[in-house]
Amino acid sequence: MEARTVGIIGGGQLGRMLIEVANRLNIDTVILDAPNSPAKQISNSIKHIDGSFTNAEDLKKLSEICDVMTFEIEHVNVESLKNNTSNTKIYPSIATIELIKDKLIQKQHLIQNGIDVAESIPVASFDKETLLETGSKLGFPFMMKTRTLGYDGRGNFVVKNTESIDQLLKNDPNLKTQSLYAEKWAPFTKELAVMVVRSINNKVYSYPTVETVHVDNICHTCYAPARVDENVQSKARLLAEKTIQSLPSESVGVFGVELFYLENGELLVNEIAPRPHNSGHYTINACIVSQFEAHLRAILGLPLPEGFTSMTTNITNCIMLNVLGKATDKKDEEKLLYENTLNTPGASLYLYGKESRPKRKLGHINIVGNSMQECEAKLQYILGQSTENTTNKKSPEVGIIMGSDSDLPVMSQACKILERFDVPFEVTIVSAHRTPQRMFTYAHDAHQRGIKVIIAGAGGAAHLPGMVAAMTPLPVIGVPVKGSTLDGVDSLYSIVQMPRGIPVASVAINNSTNAAILAVRMLGISNPKYIADMKSFMEVQEEEVIQKAAILEKDGYEEYLHNYKK
Amino acid sequence: MEARTVGIIGGGQLGRMLIEVANRLNIDTVILDAPNSPAKQISNSIKHIDGSFTNAEDLKKLSEICDVMTFEIEHVNVESLKNNTSNTKIYPSIATIELIKDKLIQKQHLIQNGIDVAESIPVASFDKETLLETGSKLGFPFMMKTRTLGYDGRGNFVVKNTESIDQLLKNDPNLKTQSLYAEKWAPFTKELAVMVVRSINNKVYSYPTVETVHVDNICHTCYAPARVDENVQSKARLLAEKTIQSLPSESVGVFGVELFYLENGELLVNEIAPRPHNSGHYTINACIVSQFEAHLRAILGLPLPEGFTSMTTNITNCIMLNVLGKATDKKDEEKLLYENTLNTPGASLYLYGKESRPKRKLGHINIVGNSMQECEAKLQYILGQSTENTTNKKSPEVGIIMGSDSDLPVMSQACKILERFDVPFEVTIVSAHRTPQRMFTYAHDAHQRGIKVIIAGAGGAAHLPGMVAAMTPLPVIGVPVKGSTLDGVDSLYSIVQMPRGIPVASVAINNSTNAAILAVRMLGISNPKYIADMKSFMEVQEEEVIQKAAILEKDGYEEYLHNYKK
Repeated sequence: MEARTVGIIGGGQLGRMLIEVANRLNIDTVILDAPNSPAKQISNSIKHIDGSFTNAEDLKKLSEICDVMTFEIEHVNVESLKNNTSNTKIYPSIATIELIKDKLIQKQHLIQNGIDVAESIPVASFDKETLLETGSKLGFPFMMKTRTLGYDGRGNFVVKNTESIDQLLKNDPNLKTQSLYAEKWAPFTKELAVMVVRSINNKVYSYPTVETVHVDNICHTCYAPARVDENVQSKARLLAEKTIQSLPSESVGVFGVELFYLENGELLVNEIAPRPHNSGHYTINACIVSQFEAHLRAILGLPLPEGFTSMTTNITNCIMLNVLGKATDKKDEEKLLYENTLNTPGASLYLYGKESRPKRKLGHINIVGNSMQECEAKLQYILGQSTENTTNKKSPEVGIIMGSDSDLPVMSQACKILERFDVPFEVTIVSAHRTPQRMFTYAHDAHQRGIKVIIAGAGGAAHLPGMVAAMTPLPVIGVPVKGSTLDGVDSLYSIVQMPRGIPVASVAINNSTNAAILAVRMLGISNPKYIADMKSFMEVQEEEVIQKAAILEKDGYEEYLHNYKK
Repeated sequence: MEARTVGIIGGGQLGRMLIEVANRLNIDTVILDAPNSPAKQISNSIKHIDGSFTNAEDLKKLSEICDVMTFEIEHVNVESLKNNTSNTKIYPSIATIELIKDKLIQKQHLIQNGIDVAESIPVASFDKETLLETGSKLGFPFMMKTRTLGYDGRGNFVVKNTESIDQLLKNDPNLKTQSLYAEKWAPFTKELAVMVVRSINNKVYSYPTVETVHVDNICHTCYAPARVDENVQSKARLLAEKTIQSLPSESVGVFGVELFYLENGELLVNEIAPRPHNSGHYTINACIVSQFEAHLRAILGLPLPEGFTSMTTNITNCIMLNVLGKATDKKDEEKLLYENTLNTPGASLYLYGKESRPKRKLGHINIVGNSMQECEAKLQYILGQSTENTTNKKSPEVGIIMGSDSDLPVMSQACKILERFDVPFEVTIVSAHRTPQRMFTYAHDAHQRGIKVIIAGAGGAAHLPGMVAAMTPLPVIGVPVKGSTLDGVDSLYSIVQMPRGIPVASVAINNSTNAAILAVRMLGISNPKYIADMKSFMEVQEEEVIQKAAILEKDGYEEYLHNYKK
């Protein structure tokens, strides 16, 4: 595709996933890292450089044989890159890497640009007096962090109170030799992250906001989108975009922006990664263009079409699970995890070609689905926390509810139709007037539980369908059930004559058959199988009438009446 | 993942795509082919063998260093594989390769197993007398084919009539040296193909039936699913499954089954490929597990979960376009094709790392969408046949129709709501009584055109919604429009009281606002953006009422009436 050669500084799993994209696009790449590093395993170019990204000579060699250089790791020898005299473009720029690499400078930059971060101050020396002074400034607990080279929680320490200072000084004496800074404690409820792409023209694009869950300071799972209100998701994206927009010119490529979501609803930027990021692995399966492809497209000036960061039409949720090496006596668990993953439709396994060592990131698993509940059920199965492979037992797509068990004879016709079309459904009693709280809960939670259509039957005043419709964004189908007076017209009017703003899809009186058929047609919007089945169903109906016509034509009306309409 | 080493005979693009999967699953592989062949480019193992799959010594070397051997090409030296004395498993088995490799033996096997194929007879010698005799047996035109080594139309010749025989003998004298057979002409209207997976336990699974379109005997595009009736698709899958089930034991892996769909509606098997196949490339983007991953899983006995051959939930259509090398003076066209592809969301480019030569398969492009029309529009753009990038101009998802322009004041409210939610829609007049043929066409074609929901407004007898619902599998929302008499109750009853089997989702009289909101909720089943927007919309509605309440509480009822309800 591109006549230009891309040099990648670092050959770990992020480099490997960049190479996977480069391979598909015939993009020429050169990797600088140790021999047989994960990225090199999947590219047989003779040009790769065996060496280190902290070695000036190796970086120089790389710059001499490529047109564009980029990073899969920021812990590089910046000085030697500065002295780069070749014409090689470096994206993101050296100034950006320098700014981000030192977390204190990064924080100060963000503060200067009006971006909310936790208060951060330098720590001049690692002794009791300084730490006490820091604690009196920031309050306890506070965080101590090394300014450079930290990752996966390494280089971060919590200073709980004045008493814990002695302990810290004793346990980690080698912190003395490092540049440190202190950060005010951020009382977060969730950790969020947003991948941002910045193009050569300085346009920024953000991917959906995700939620990262850490165990022992290592990212365990990543939920996309984050399980927070949509407004919070939007605010996080805007903040992340603003953050990346604040970086120096030529900050081209993808960036991970980690955020804290505080108890009081505020968002703070935690830190920036100037490269693809673990929290963006979900994009491989869930988004139009993955973070890795977006990075290569950005640094090569290739097209970034409208909406490329969106989740793929109709994938609504994704959970990414990191695969960490197990303890030496538990290698069987790794194998079981892989097997469970391969047994789960919608789950994709990405291994990095690394030797297994305890807690080492060996790969990741992307689980896509149409609700977070579906993804979570698959995750449970993959982790061996549920023996039930939920892929065979589908969660209900239609919820059938009725105001009273006296409606069941009518509503059971809907159940039969859904069984015929193989639509997973649930059926229960929810009364607007006798169980208002239950109705509220049902309507409120249905969408979160993965329900896609609600069928509600009710007679008389028949408030159930309309009240449920008022509390869910899902389509609600109303079945007017005929009562002992007024022939069902009361229920029909009550169900169909909804005010502007809240619709109920009404069907004929007592016709729950049609309610279910309508539900199947609605589900057909996202599942072509239902459309195909609906076509066959309609053909069968047609055939039945044609057969009756043939008999009537053959037998004449009198005999027909005699035989079939007794 | 697997401790076993897989040997792949052949390192072309099919091998490359197998390696891409193997890389992701940490499956150890060894490739036998020329140095730097496409597959080798993306795997730096030092174990690969530089050599030829027609060379006995090279095949022996391969068998000695791997546990399972498989094929990405069937034109191998079968004799040397037969003499393989190592413990290496070969999937599919040598007997299968031998049977398939000689097309005449393959045909005879299929006939013996009761599988419909074009009549095929040996041609003893390449001379006028034999060809005349063959023509008198099979009729003209008939096909002449080489029994082995044919691909992409090479080795196939049409014998039009007695006169064309001399021409053929003169043009292709070297056919004399080849084993030939003749095949009765199959008057096909379309070429179909089905990928079939056979597991180690001899279970067979088929992927959706596709349609291949050839230009100059080379596959140009592949449409998934095939643009034929669903019944034909099912018949084709069953026939393909039966075909693969008929093969000898240990026929493990994926197989491509090419079929002819004849003018009279019959299906004939054309030929089998004992490996991944060009007609299965669409599975990479459109199916739960791709043909390449399925092949590796099958030959390694890894899980093949229920439904793994299905199209991914909610992807309904895919077009695969082969990228062929252009003439030397038209290399710019290749670049433009790539750029257009990268500019098209839902289109993925797979290049094979091959040098460009005219008509050489350099890669392929998978285009996914929610209707064939959407995919075709994207294809046009990619091929430069349309300057309009349809990704920015979405095809309508909702069709608004009404019986008369007198309904427009009511129905225009629906348009406004759809605009507010950014739903692409179309609006027109279709009268059940005055334009019955137009109504039939509209209802019949709507689904094919990519419409997902129809909103139909009508007054008086109000037949339009129900009649349209009778001729489409899509959900139809009916808006009863109030006429000059009966206050709209006539329309309401006519629309809502549909017979069992054909539902219309009725809303309140004149309330096309709610019809549009209902449509948005239905579309939310497949697009989470609409659900999120619906939630915000409901919050805004709530806020508006709360603000009014606050004013009423503050001003008192008299002033409120005076100020706001004049």
